[in-house]
Amino acid sequence: MTDNAILTITALQERVEAIFAKAGLNPVQAAALARVIVAGERDACKSHGIYRIEGALRTVKAGKVRPDAVPEIVEQQASAIVRVNANGGFANPAFELGVPHLVARARSHGLAALVVNDCTHFSALWPEVEALTNEGLAALVMCPSYATVAPTGGNKPLLGTNPVAFGWPRRDSTPYVFDFATSVAARGEIELYRRAGKPLPEGWAIDAEGEPTTAPEAALAGAMLPFGGHKGSAIATMVELLAGIMIGDLTSPEVLDFLGTTTLAPRHGELVIAFSPEAFAAGRPGDPFARAEVLFDAILGQGARLPSQRRFAARQKSESEGISLSREEIAQLDRLLRDGLDSVV
Amino acid sequence: MTDNAILTITALQERVEAIFAKAGLNPVQAAALARVIVAGERDACKSHGIYRIEGALRTVKAGKVRPDAVPEIVEQQASAIVRVNANGGFANPAFELGVPHLVARARSHGLAALVVNDCTHFSALWPEVEALTNEGLAALVMCPSYATVAPTGGNKPLLGTNPVAFGWPRRDSTPYVFDFATSVAARGEIELYRRAGKPLPEGWAIDAEGEPTTAPEAALAGAMLPFGGHKGSAIATMVELLAGIMIGDLTSPEVLDFLGTTTLAPRHGELVIAFSPEAFAAGRPGDPFARAEVLFDAILGQGARLPSQRRFAARQKSESEGISLSREEIAQLDRLLRDGLDSVV
Repeated sequence: MTDNAILTITALQERVEAIFAKAGLNPVQAAALARVIVAGERDACKSHGIYRIEGALRTVKAGKVRPDAVPEIVEQQASAIVRVNANGGFANPAFELGVPHLVARARSHGLAALVVNDCTHFSALWPEVEALTNEGLAALVMCPSYATVAPTGGNKPLLGTNPVAFGWPRRDSTPYVFDFATSVAARGEIELYRRAGKPLPEGWAIDAEGEPTTAPEAALAGAMLPFGGHKGSAIATMVELLAGIMIGDLTSPEVLDFLGTTTLAPRHGELVIAFSPEAFAAGRPGDPFARAEVLFDAILGQGARLPSQRRFAARQKSESEGISLSREEIAQLDRLLRDGLDSVV
Repeated sequence: MTDNAILTITALQERVEAIFAKAGLNPVQAAALARVIVAGERDACKSHGIYRIEGALRTVKAGKVRPDAVPEIVEQQASAIVRVNANGGFANPAFELGVPHLVARARSHGLAALVVNDCTHFSALWPEVEALTNEGLAALVMCPSYATVAPTGGNKPLLGTNPVAFGWPRRDSTPYVFDFATSVAARGEIELYRRAGKPLPEGWAIDAEGEPTTAPEAALAGAMLPFGGHKGSAIATMVELLAGIMIGDLTSPEVLDFLGTTTLAPRHGELVIAFSPEAFAAGRPGDPFARAEVLFDAILGQGARLPSQRRFAARQKSESEGISLSREEIAQLDRLLRDGLDSVV
């Protein structure tokens, strides 16, 4: 007898969508949110799977995101910028609304940007990246988060974990996709060390006095550090500038001011840049997609991995065998469906 | 009595330009090359200053760059892409030709890209970044180099040191600019450790068998490593994809095949993306330039630095007091001017 239940991807989508509907989200919010959460679960990214439902509901309950928001395209003078206002809702339906426009403009102009404003963004960035690689476009995506990371040489939280994600479309394979925080570690990882009573690796964090620490409690009261020293710090700062300030949306310190906590999903904007490899390679020798395969083969030929390989393997398994959830997870989904917003504090 | 001579920036520009003219470069190549070399010397970036003249001349002498090339704008269908073919010359005059077009398109479209193809690129990327911040645009610039860096998890050279540079314009100050290799260290730094007979820091390199090494000789025979582990490796791979393959130009392994050595300046393309903060912020609350100053003040207020601060301080000194060169450096300039291509092997 197994403790696990197997659900098809479609069945899990319906179940998660129903939870969000019960909690008061309108259909466009509920469906888009369920899609990214199910995608996380499908790809065995448990930290972006059904685990995230409660955080989304808490953010609704706290009044920090509008469950009935309807995103809309904002008329824009600049022809290579598509702007979607999420109108205080979640980022995901706003992103989905913008994608066809972004794709069309990237194809005609060679590159284009999608700006999502006034949204709550709690998912990974790879779903956004893959929505564009599916259209044969390369994509670079970034957003701020809450101020929890000190700049290199600094002593207190200022920058966010500011993820950056990139994708390159492949004709006969899953795309090349990376998606990572510009901090050494995620805040959740430090929390796991704390619960396990284990010291952190060196270089992850500083304490409230700005001194290096390996104590998880001291790290949580202090600040995380950027990956790769001053280089990662500079990239995280670029994310604040481009995907916060330039697009007229909140920076990571402003997000923290707005929420007053890191336990709710962050409110900010998002910047998505799409590139048409066909347009960029036009008139030049060689097919860019074939040439990229030579590079990937060389990486794999050294025994190195391509990013997201594990995720795509898990996806393939989920697509053929369904998604396996534990008895506790099923019980949690049942509880969330039954109690709606009452199930969270 | 001092060993040093003081030259004005203009005087050094004339002297370096004359050296390149004597070596057979046409006026457009000689002037643009001299500008980036003098900018390096002016900013106390000695590794990108007059030290670079010999490498440029060696590359001319080896027949790997055309000293008489005249760059030209290539007609392009995609309206947000400006393409310049360097026609086998240096990147710098091709970039200069493209800048006004890039600026105009970034302003009208919101963002735009400049592609430079078929060029030899040996300078830092910050001169390119600053040409755009001077116009009130943000800029992201990248290019491949030679295959000298192993991907994380790999065991031999494949990626280049693949620099990435970014700039944000500031109204009343020098811009926010970073420019760094995506390898932990530059090859020249490893060479300095070798000459000093000192072991390398951990994590810089692997030997020819793919094993970690701190021996400079073993590192030079093996491969350098990306900064920040798998994250830096992913960014370096993105540079190959966007600024090599997508723009229809050489990847780092192809550059090395073309040159057969890392002692000559590399032949490849370059990708420059320019953003109009005004266009992106249009219709949104707050002035992006004023908001960026709040972020910079917060960084500086923690005792952290902004990248390029030292360089800008050196520039201010050079502009008011002139550029100081040693007796040996002056003698070298005299020798290069007298002997032209005969002064290099």
